[in-house]
Amino acid sequence: RLDSEDIQDAFKFEETDNITWSNINGLNNTPEIEIIGDHYNLHPLIQEDIVTTNQRPKIDEYEDYLFLVFKMLHYNEDGEFVNEHVSMVLGSDYVVTFQEADGDVFDGVRERLQNAKGRIRSAGADYLMFALLDAVVDNYFSVIETLSEKIEVLEDQLFDDNIKDDITQDIQELKKEILRIRRAILPLREVINRLEKIDSKLIDERTHNYIRDLYDHIIQVSESVDIYREMIWGLMDMYMTTISNKMNEVMKVLTIMASIFIPLTFMAGIYGMNFDYIPELQYKYGYFVLWGLMILVFLGMLYYFKRKKWL
Amino acid sequence: RLDSEDIQDAFKFEETDNITWSNINGLNNTPEIEIIGDHYNLHPLIQEDIVTTNQRPKIDEYEDYLFLVFKMLHYNEDGEFVNEHVSMVLGSDYVVTFQEADGDVFDGVRERLQNAKGRIRSAGADYLMFALLDAVVDNYFSVIETLSEKIEVLEDQLFDDNIKDDITQDIQELKKEILRIRRAILPLREVINRLEKIDSKLIDERTHNYIRDLYDHIIQVSESVDIYREMIWGLMDMYMTTISNKMNEVMKVLTIMASIFIPLTFMAGIYGMNFDYIPELQYKYGYFVLWGLMILVFLGMLYYFKRKKWL
Amino acid sequence: RLDSEDIQDAFKFEETDNITWSNINGLNNTPEIEIIGDHYNLHPLIQEDIVTTNQRPKIDEYEDYLFLVFKMLHYNEDGEFVNEHVSMVLGSDYVVTFQEADGDVFDGVRERLQNAKGRIRSAGADYLMFALLDAVVDNYFSVIETLSEKIEVLEDQLFDDNIKDDITQDIQELKKEILRIRRAILPLREVINRLEKIDSKLIDERTHNYIRDLYDHIIQVSESVDIYREMIWGLMDMYMTTISNKMNEVMKVLTIMASIFIPLTFMAGIYGMNFDYIPELQYKYGYFVLWGLMILVFLGMLYYFKRKKWL
Amino acid sequence: RLDSEDIQDAFKFEETDNITWSNINGLNNTPEIEIIGDHYNLHPLIQEDIVTTNQRPKIDEYEDYLFLVFKMLHYNEDGEFVNEHVSMVLGSDYVVTFQEADGDVFDGVRERLQNAKGRIRSAGADYLMFALLDAVVDNYFSVIETLSEKIEVLEDQLFDDNIKDDITQDIQELKKEILRIRRAILPLREVINRLEKIDSKLIDERTHNYIRDLYDHIIQVSESVDIYREMIWGLMDMYMTTISNKMNEVMKVLTIMASIFIPLTFMAGIYGMNFDYIPELQYKYGYFVLWGLMILVFLGMLYYFKRKKWL
Amino acid sequence: RLDSEDIQDAFKFEETDNITWSNINGLNNTPEIEIIGDHYNLHPLIQEDIVTTNQRPKIDEYEDYLFLVFKMLHYNEDGEFVNEHVSMVLGSDYVVTFQEADGDVFDGVRERLQNAKGRIRSAGADYLMFALLDAVVDNYFSVIETLSEKIEVLEDQLFDDNIKDDITQDIQELKKEILRIRRAILPLREVINRLEKIDSKLIDERTHNYIRDLYDHIIQVSESVDIYREMIWGLMDMYMTTISNKMNEVMKVLTIMASIFIPLTFMAGIYGMNFDYIPELQYKYGYFVLWGLMILVFLGMLYYFKRKKWL
Repeated sequence: RLDSEDIQDAFKFEETDNITWSNINGLNNTPEIEIIGDHYNLHPLIQEDIVTTNQRPKIDEYEDYLFLVFKMLHYNEDGEFVNEHVSMVLGSDYVVTFQEADGDVFDGVRERLQNAKGRIRSAGADYLMFALLDAVVDNYFSVIETLSEKIEVLEDQLFDDNIKDDITQDIQELKKEILRIRRAILPLREVINRLEKIDSKLIDERTHNYIRDLYDHIIQVSESVDIYREMIWGLMDMYMTTISNKMNEVMKVLTIMASIFIPLTFMAGIYGMNFDYIPELQYKYGYFVLWGLMILVFLGMLYYFKRKKWL
Repeated sequence: RLDSEDIQDAFKFEETDNITWSNINGLNNTPEIEIIGDHYNLHPLIQEDIVTTNQRPKIDEYEDYLFLVFKMLHYNEDGEFVNEHVSMVLGSDYVVTFQEADGDVFDGVRERLQNAKGRIRSAGADYLMFALLDAVVDNYFSVIETLSEKIEVLEDQLFDDNIKDDITQDIQELKKEILRIRRAILPLREVINRLEKIDSKLIDERTHNYIRDLYDHIIQVSESVDIYREMIWGLMDMYMTTISNKMNEVMKVLTIMASIFIPLTFMAGIYGMNFDYIPELQYKYGYFVLWGLMILVFLGMLYYFKRKKWL
Repeated sequence: RLDSEDIQDAFKFEETDNITWSNINGLNNTPEIEIIGDHYNLHPLIQEDIVTTNQRPKIDEYEDYLFLVFKMLHYNEDGEFVNEHVSMVLGSDYVVTFQEADGDVFDGVRERLQNAKGRIRSAGADYLMFALLDAVVDNYFSVIETLSEKIEVLEDQLFDDNIKDDITQDIQELKKEILRIRRAILPLREVINRLEKIDSKLIDERTHNYIRDLYDHIIQVSESVDIYREMIWGLMDMYMTTISNKMNEVMKVLTIMASIFIPLTFMAGIYGMNFDYIPELQYKYGYFVLWGLMILVFLGMLYYFKRKKWL
Repeated sequence: RLDSEDIQDAFKFEETDNITWSNINGLNNTPEIEIIGDHYNLHPLIQEDIVTTNQRPKIDEYEDYLFLVFKMLHYNEDGEFVNEHVSMVLGSDYVVTFQEADGDVFDGVRERLQNAKGRIRSAGADYLMFALLDAVVDNYFSVIETLSEKIEVLEDQLFDDNIKDDITQDIQELKKEILRIRRAILPLREVINRLEKIDSKLIDERTHNYIRDLYDHIIQVSESVDIYREMIWGLMDMYMTTISNKMNEVMKVLTIMASIFIPLTFMAGIYGMNFDYIPELQYKYGYFVLWGLMILVFLGMLYYFKRKKWL
Repeated sequence: RLDSEDIQDAFKFEETDNITWSNINGLNNTPEIEIIGDHYNLHPLIQEDIVTTNQRPKIDEYEDYLFLVFKMLHYNEDGEFVNEHVSMVLGSDYVVTFQEADGDVFDGVRERLQNAKGRIRSAGADYLMFALLDAVVDNYFSVIETLSEKIEVLEDQLFDDNIKDDITQDIQELKKEILRIRRAILPLREVINRLEKIDSKLIDERTHNYIRDLYDHIIQVSESVDIYREMIWGLMDMYMTTISNKMNEVMKVLTIMASIFIPLTFMAGIYGMNFDYIPELQYKYGYFVLWGLMILVFLGMLYYFKRKKWL
């Protein structure tokens, strides 16, 4: 392994019999990308695709190499969803990857290479490509995992009483994230499907089994995405019912209070009138009889609301 | 039949002319799985697929055997939905199944084997594979049945008065279950479809008729799933209308109480005023006339609400 | 035509040159079904399909006969939706149909046969099969018709004032019905499509034109089903808006009553106070001036609500 | 051109070298349809399709002629949506059209024929067929136009204050219309697509370009239909939000009125009490101080609601 | 480059060895379009398509040229969405474009041509066609950008307090825009897809790579459109929840005010009664005790609402 700032070193390193994997971090360094492009004789359109970060995942077959574009997804330290553009060129004895930023998804592969563990060191460049793609797809699983946790957090919040007002915005945000995840995964699924079926001398027969397995994985990811998508869309409905339920509760309190006290207030109002002749007013226990009546009305109301299950 | 803890016994047993069915329970026992894998010469990727429990249903054709992955679904004693990972290898004269846990779905097949009943004992390994898959699909029907009962319970609860608050969570839960069921069934449908069309020396011509029948069954299951899916999605709308209907009822009670007693209270308030000169107060029957008026207003209101069908 | 309880009679009858149509009612009579199965040499899987009433519509081609499964739909006397399982075997000179119950859908065909009317008597067994399928599809039209009437009844009820509470259940019920109808019709569409394209010596070239026509009909039915499906799904939204409209009306009544009488009550309350010095109380016409003011407030409110179109 | 009540005249007219176009209005005149059917040797199924008005659009190829079914759509004078069944037979030197009623869609073609204008007179029967279909598709554009106006009218009504109650029924009606329009257009699209690809001696090579153009048009119509469909489905949501907005406004009026006057009424109630010793009552300016307090509360409330943007 | 009002000049200019690009602005100038049509020998249907502005995007292959129709989208100065019809004819050594209005989308290409920069001047007519289409698709990205900003503005408004009433109309308007954008983009996607696969002598092998790249771009645009579409549809739900949340808040204010003051008013009403014998009235500190009680009730209510998180 060679950690070098100078591309030319990498090329010298290449003279040996081994498979070379060059990983370029940062897409602003266009001169370096041009040097590599010239060295490996890459088509100008490829060089353009390497630096246009909103290029969707795809695979282009050229005579001497395969060109792949895909996305690394992760949540950064601020919990923001990040969509990193990665390109890969697979030649007969080299793999070049271009990363937008210094990601850590490939670290596992790097480690296995250094430890000379497993097939990865003995096998060809095509297996290295598989290993790198596999690392990316495995990473998707963990992204999906994070997403599923976010959904559960939101679901719990929906039933929490001190729910904040902008939960709809959180849901809308989640919708955007899942749509962007889908947008990274679905085309890659097609890419891997085509990779499985491709008839290229660059890809060994034995590697096809591994790519088929990779294809199984990406299908699984995309099925999970579809399920979480339905869940997120369902959140809005859940929220709506929660709001309505709360309004219902508010209305019940109002209705109970008003229905009990408005008639009682009316009764009190009756005997607050100043008519010259209101016989009840002169009864000795009139006041207490009225209290009794009021308590009766009160209890009747309570019973009524109890029976209606509003209390 | 041989109940053995030692895999080697099983292999000895195999020397005979019969078809061998080995069923391995528990996927943590990797050494055993490796022994079997070596014995039957299974590809390393298969050994990996056997133990990765979130592998989706699939079929892989190899030269000497077919490899199938599928899911057993059931509700455990706590009513939780369980998704059990099962793998199957079909060779010329053996079937090996790997189960995540000690399920009872295969019990029927086991019994028929012991009782030497039906085609199952005389036919080949391919028929045994069919019988096992058939048991799995039959089991799906009963899972769907349970699901349909759950839906009906929820539907009834929606119109129940003391509905609990978190019914939306139950519905969301049901959505997740049906999505997970679909996820187990849809790929298996493809697997069986491919099994029907496969041109392999491992599968006898006569067995194809049975697989076609199996395919009919799994399509039927997946159609039921789609129907229940629509039903579950409809539940949320039903719940929403129920909430709204209840709020409507609450509002009606409030409106009726307030509309009747607020004007009456106003009338009482009028004659509670202390103006020096309010002629009505001095009429002898003023109080009774007012009562009459109040009763008229009361009845008028009742009539109005009756005509509006609010009572 | 022969109405016999004894299957053997039917077989004797068959010795003649004619086309035989045997119709078996009731699927519990397994011995009879077995006799017929043996007589016509039917595959055991067919005999199983004949009696499993939840088998979906399908067509199976065998060397000497075609096997079809389809559904008869009708509403019974209680207005319940009934889904009847029917199987049909078409041989070179016979048609056997197995009905779950004693339906009357085939009566028209039976009559035309007895009256020796039209092509039906002179043509072969394949034309008889067409005539029976045609009767089934024609029956679908009438089922759809009934469904459309049910939808219209519900639509009218939605705007009716004394709407019953469980209309959402009626709608959910209708959803289930249409989903079950679709489930009967969609696979049959495929069956007929395949029947049109089948290259079998059992089906005469001239009959193909009739089957193509039948295919047109079933597509028409399934399009109607899709339209009614959208209508039914729309019912829930309609109901939701109706509820909301009603709540709106209730709220308006409350708001109008409260907004008019609460301020008036306040005004009366002012002059019910017992302050030693309230100058207005001593004015001679204070009471009448207040009445005037109250009427002004009342009219102002009325005008305000009128302008807001709430009255 | 020949306007005749007697079909036989039409046939004599045919003896000439020209292309004959016969247009039959009204499908109840079965004897005439039979005469034409016999004259042109039409299959009995075609004769049936001509008179079954709910037959969906289709194309049937026969040896000597093509048979097309399609729909003319228009709004009649009462603004009702009308779906007219039309059949067309294209032979080598004749076109026969069967219309359900006396429509005016073909008038333009008729006129161009009489004026001997454009290709239409010199070209063959296939071009005449194209011209007639083109007139029908052009007519679809105007139907769609009318529909789009209806949608706009409804959209405006939604925000109108004196909205009528049954606007949901209008929307449901519109849904039905658009579904029926789709049902006429989608199958015709397939018909024209097949017409473009058909390899028939009846259709000249040069006419294919025109049919391709026609196909473009019908795709355009069907895309418009899909857009208006989404618009109509959106209307219901719009209506729902309008209702909710209105209810919100109603609630605000109630809340403002009640929140302002209920506390004030309470304050008045306090000093309406008859306790022997209420010190405030004896203060000389007690009454005026209370008024001041009430006005303060009133203004405070107003300010509060102003800040909440409820006023 | 030649800026001429006279078409004939353009043709003279053509005599040279170069590739000619003629751009005609305004589709009302039919005589000029006819002159060009005759000069390049264009089919009459093409001339018709050039001027029918609602023609959907398409590609027609003729022997000597390709004919393309597409749409330029932009927002005009008033912020209105404009859909401009453009046609293009690609011959062996010429490109003719017909624009509805004087757009500026092609300006970049024009500039590069004048500056003789890049491939564009040396390459053939097919590359020029690519460059023009590329400019159009690039323009779509900026239209989408504008749309996405509009969505964000609406999202923010939803949570703004002084939201205007007709935001649903804005959303409906946005729906229409995105549907019209889709309608321009989706068929162009197919056009470019076909362009990529076309086997025409007009298109150089090397240009195919560029067209494939263009196809990637248009797929990207159409995926963005689908995402924004979901966002817009989500807006309505968000708005609905915002309305409901607001109503909830209104209801809470009402409920709190009413629940607190109605019981207090009742208490005051009690001691406003005129019974001859109400013992409490004669207690010396009766009035103050009552005040204490009222404050207790008041605080109790506040505590209750606080605990319910309504305050």
